[in-house]
Amino acid sequence: MTERLTTFAAGDTGQWRVRSVRAVSGESLPLAAALDVRAAGAKPGDRWSLAGVTSNERYVTRPEKEQLVARQAGLGRAGPMLGALIPIRKSAAWWAMTQDERRAIFEAQSKHIQIGMDYLPAIARRLYHCRDLGKCAPFDFLTWFEYAPADETQFNALLQALRATPEWQYVEREVDIRLARASAPR
Amino acid sequence: MTERLTTFAAGDTGQWRVRSVRAVSGESLPLAAALDVRAAGAKPGDRWSLAGVTSNERYVTRPEKEQLVARQAGLGRAGPMLGALIPIRKSAAWWAMTQDERRAIFEAQSKHIQIGMDYLPAIARRLYHCRDLGKCAPFDFLTWFEYAPADETQFNALLQALRATPEWQYVEREVDIRLARASAPR
Repeated sequence: MTERLTTFAAGDTGQWRVRSVRAVSGESLPLAAALDVRAAGAKPGDRWSLAGVTSNERYVTRPEKEQLVARQAGLGRAGPMLGALIPIRKSAAWWAMTQDERRAIFEAQSKHIQIGMDYLPAIARRLYHCRDLGKCAPFDFLTWFEYAPADETQFNALLQALRATPEWQYVEREVDIRLARASAPR
Repeated sequence: MTERLTTFAAGDTGQWRVRSVRAVSGESLPLAAALDVRAAGAKPGDRWSLAGVTSNERYVTRPEKEQLVARQAGLGRAGPMLGALIPIRKSAAWWAMTQDERRAIFEAQSKHIQIGMDYLPAIARRLYHCRDLGKCAPFDFLTWFEYAPADETQFNALLQALRATPEWQYVEREVDIRLARASAPR
């Protein structure tokens, strides 16, 4: 499963230049010059690092998945590219709910999938899970976004829409890290 | 999250005596005299060890959860107790399915929750997840069972019923490790 693990390491060097680090809820993370995205784990020079795994779908149904796949763009597009890493931790109350209760808040009440769909293909996205990594992880998810500089207004609108949903009442820590690609995509 | 991680370590000593190790599907695991169940990780003397985390519900709905909670017995009951550790890996085809597709096979087609309910409170059970641990784990789940010696026939019937379901067509590795408690519950 190692190939599903990605480490996001803040430090002096990396493929992404850090533009800003802002706490949306709870404690922030220390500022650093760059973010290195790598398959290998933490290294001695890192200021801090967060790891997560890509995993199976938790809420999306087959018809929703087909709509998403038809509309979405891949990561690593050519040209100047901005990025965002948004680590999130949800509350104990969220995790104590059963699958049907979480799905009801996620989509029936909050339209999480539909809101994301409205911003495709401009905003490309990948979700990494860290809640079940087994070691003490400060976040449950790491959400990664890539978009062209002209689409940053749209990206801000997407975040504003999600943060206004009933689902976000269960978010107890959220850090918004804005990035700009410093080197060509690998 | 450390408190959700449990290690099952096979070796010379442990709270559980190993009665048998049998491959149901795919490769088996090496036989050992005892199984140690601990919060700490692997130790130098272990023959092998598997780790998993307890996590949120993946398929159960609130009405199902309430029925389960009303009927189930806790782990660590007094008296002589048999146990079983059944590590399972499911196929890539299973994990490529969306949530609604997996739930349909799990319950609508296979009655996984209903079958388990039929054997409560005799068979106590806890599920540990290892698919998203981040390191190369050979299994996706570790299922732990405890039951009185007189209930082993029932336990075998439970496993036979589950293994005959459509869900089990997606199980590509399964090892059935039978145990007997060697010491009083902690």
